[in-house]
Amino acid sequence: MKAQEYPQAVQDLIASLKRMPGVGSRGAERLALWFLQQGRADARTLAAALVHAADTVSTCPECGFFAPQGERCTACGDATRDTRLLCVVEQPTDVLPIERSGSFRGLYHCLGGKISPLDGVMPEDLAVEKLLERVRALPGCEVILAVGSDVEGEATALYLAEQLAPLDCTVSRIAQGMPAGAGLSHADAVTLMRAIQGRRGI
Amino acid sequence: MKAQEYPQAVQDLIASLKRMPGVGSRGAERLALWFLQQGRADARTLAAALVHAADTVSTCPECGFFAPQGERCTACGDATRDTRLLCVVEQPTDVLPIERSGSFRGLYHCLGGKISPLDGVMPEDLAVEKLLERVRALPGCEVILAVGSDVEGEATALYLAEQLAPLDCTVSRIAQGMPAGAGLSHADAVTLMRAIQGRRGI
Repeated sequence: MKAQEYPQAVQDLIASLKRMPGVGSRGAERLALWFLQQGRADARTLAAALVHAADTVSTCPECGFFAPQGERCTACGDATRDTRLLCVVEQPTDVLPIERSGSFRGLYHCLGGKISPLDGVMPEDLAVEKLLERVRALPGCEVILAVGSDVEGEATALYLAEQLAPLDCTVSRIAQGMPAGAGLSHADAVTLMRAIQGRRGI
Repeated sequence: MKAQEYPQAVQDLIASLKRMPGVGSRGAERLALWFLQQGRADARTLAAALVHAADTVSTCPECGFFAPQGERCTACGDATRDTRLLCVVEQPTDVLPIERSGSFRGLYHCLGGKISPLDGVMPEDLAVEKLLERVRALPGCEVILAVGSDVEGEATALYLAEQLAPLDCTVSRIAQGMPAGAGLSHADAVTLMRAIQGRRGI
C-alpha cells in the first residue's frame, strides 16, 4: 500500500518555505496548505514580489543600506540631511529602528556585521575602509557608533574608535543603560552597572 | 527631511509576506531582509514553487484531498487499499496525520469544513451529498467519522450519522479519551468524562 502523500508540487513548496528562518516543518506545511486553500492569488503575488525584489534591490554605494539597483538610498539622496553626522550600524536592518526613533537626521554607514573572530569575521570583512574614506572626506564630522552592546559590538566599537582617532572627527557611542519602561527588578547586573556608570546630573 | 525607507520592491515584498497566517509586521520584515541578505536563490526557488503549486495542484475528484490537476490522489489511485472503508475528515490537512498513524488503510473523504451555523457553514456547504453518493455505491461499507471533538465537530458527526442511518453501511466515530502520554492531573473535565464513558474491558 502506498502512503497518502501530498502531490510533488506541494512537497516542493513545503521544502522551499521551510528554508525561511524561524519556519519549521509544521509551519511550512501549514503555510503551503494555506496558499493552496485560501491564498492562490497571494501565492502569485508573493512569487512576483520575491522575484522583483531579488532582481531590483541592491545596496546603496555610499552607506550600504538597501537601494534600487544603481541608485543611492533615500537618506543618501536627501539634500536636507546633515551630511556631517554619520551613524555607524552593524546591519542595514539596524537603520530603520534608529530612523523611527526620530532622533537622528544625519547619514548612515552599514558595516555589514561585527568583529567576531570566533565566527571568522575580521575587520577587513566589514566596510571599515569605506567608513574611514568617508570620514577623511568630511573633516570635522561627527561619528556615532550605534553597534550592539554585546561583546562583539563592544570589540567593534573599540576597534573603530582606534581607527578613527587619528582622523579629524569626534567619535561617540550610543548610551547604555536602562531601557524605557523597565523596572529595576528585571534589569540584569551588567545593564545596571552600565546605567550607574553612565549616570547624568538632572 | 525624507525618512529613510526601504526601496518600494522591499516594501511590496514585506506586504506580501505579511499576508501569510501567523506572520506579523516584524516577522515579514525579518523574512524579507533575510531573502535579500542571504536567500536570493531561495527567493527565486520559493517563487517558482509557489507558482508551480498554484498552477498544478487541484483536489482529488473522489475524496477532495490534494492531487495533481486532473488526477486522483495517491490513496484513491492505490488499488491495494480497502475501498469499503471510508474515513470522513473535516479538511484535507487532517488526512496525513491519520495516514502517519499507520492505523488506517482505506480511503478518505474530505468534507471541506464542519457544520457551524455561527460561521455560516451549513451542511449544504460541505461535501455531504458526495459522501452519501459514495456510500450508496458501496453497499455494506464502513464509515469512520474522524471529525474534531469540539462542538461543531460533534454536530457534524451527529448530522452525518443521521444522514447515513438509512443507508447500507456501518458508521463509527473515532474514540475520545486521554491522549497518549498524558497524566490525569492535566486532563480537563470533559476529556475525563468521555474517557470514563468510553472505558473498555482489559
